[in-house]
Amino acid sequence: MSDARAFRLTVAYDGTDFHGWQKQPGLRTVQGELERAAAIVLAQEGVAVHGAGRTDAGVHARGQVASLRAVTELPGKAIGPLMQRQLPRDVRIVESREADARFHARHSARGRRYAYRLLERDDVMLRRHAWYPRRAYVPERLGLATAPLVGEHDCSAFEASGSSEVSPMCRIALARWRAWEGGLLFEIVADHFLYHMVRNLVGTALQAARHADPAARMQAILESRDRGRGAGTAPPQGLCLEQVYFEGEALAA
Amino acid sequence: MSDARAFRLTVAYDGTDFHGWQKQPGLRTVQGELERAAAIVLAQEGVAVHGAGRTDAGVHARGQVASLRAVTELPGKAIGPLMQRQLPRDVRIVESREADARFHARHSARGRRYAYRLLERDDVMLRRHAWYPRRAYVPERLGLATAPLVGEHDCSAFEASGSSEVSPMCRIALARWRAWEGGLLFEIVADHFLYHMVRNLVGTALQAARHADPAARMQAILESRDRGRGAGTAPPQGLCLEQVYFEGEALAA
Repeated sequence: MSDARAFRLTVAYDGTDFHGWQKQPGLRTVQGELERAAAIVLAQEGVAVHGAGRTDAGVHARGQVASLRAVTELPGKAIGPLMQRQLPRDVRIVESREADARFHARHSARGRRYAYRLLERDDVMLRRHAWYPRRAYVPERLGLATAPLVGEHDCSAFEASGSSEVSPMCRIALARWRAWEGGLLFEIVADHFLYHMVRNLVGTALQAARHADPAARMQAILESRDRGRGAGTAPPQGLCLEQVYFEGEALAA
Repeated sequence: MSDARAFRLTVAYDGTDFHGWQKQPGLRTVQGELERAAAIVLAQEGVAVHGAGRTDAGVHARGQVASLRAVTELPGKAIGPLMQRQLPRDVRIVESREADARFHARHSARGRRYAYRLLERDDVMLRRHAWYPRRAYVPERLGLATAPLVGEHDCSAFEASGSSEVSPMCRIALARWRAWEGGLLFEIVADHFLYHMVRNLVGTALQAARHADPAARMQAILESRDRGRGAGTAPPQGLCLEQVYFEGEALAA
């Protein structure tokens, strides 16, 4: 019997009808669907599929990366299309290829890019993938609020309880707002993220933007390391895992 | 008993899970949902709700306009929020107000604006509201193909069989392509539209764009008045009724 080979999948999904990435008995999850499809294609029970980001219920992905190991003769490029036939319409394998035998989507990842989409007015179509905050906000002030985030920080102030992260230190390479179809979008790249961190940052930015000095307000909350200082958690449907970075790839725009 | 008053509603909906606008027994339709909600709010059976555009199954709207007549003491502004409570999440009343007693959304309309969204790559989130044509296209050539459409024309070449329009003459005030989040969007404003006209135009434009002279190709099809000359009908999910124009409103961008 030959050795197990490692495969890397780029996966997109509409998180609306999933109970998140992580497999849970009796619930529809992205990992569960991928493992079911992989088991069929590889004719092998119990194939583990690991994801770089364990997205929550309702959170989407355009560039999730997953890995699996299997003893198979199939070319890496064929794994994706074959799995796709076994998958529901709301998960799509964008790319599949063979990877270095030690490749593990979660452990090998060096950074992630998330986007959080706000709506400037409620929109019956876009609200599956974006959030309409009922309180008005000034775009320029959101930018002021998030500017202090770039750099290396203890981000405990934005970590939900129940986190399993070893370290609260995050190196944030990029944090900016830009326009999209429905309004404004918050884009953030970091080496890792704490539990609910992006959603807590967005909630806090919206609150800080209403202060006289949004940057000072954000800075004070960041330095407090106290989750009690931040604002509410923005809802999941606005969040999307856009890209995962691996060794040799710059954490940039 | 006082006279019946007329009300004007601006309505948005995600057409994905509707069998179109028009009421059909036993099927979930937008008109059916609105009439059900109106009957509850106005405590009156058989309230007819007329729409300016009878969108097909799977077609969306951001700016559909509907009208109804009722004997009621309710202020026009209150009708929308009251009906909204009786409506499912995928229909939203954006605005409601009292209108001139003779107002009828379909008969009073002087023009409509539709958008058809193309995807430049398949996207698991956007494909509910846009279409990914598998054959590649050159954006500039799509613009060349649709340029001859502006003006007044017999548009029979783009009319599906089964149409009930009285006249095939359409005055097209605007036909252009512009960028949106997922790729390109075709925007068209006309006084009226024939059955499946926008979807047939998009299918034909994609085909004409592959010809040596896209404008000449489109012009020849237009002048033929022969549906057999055009290309396939683009699928419904890319289409959205964006705006309806009434007397005194210019059919412009």
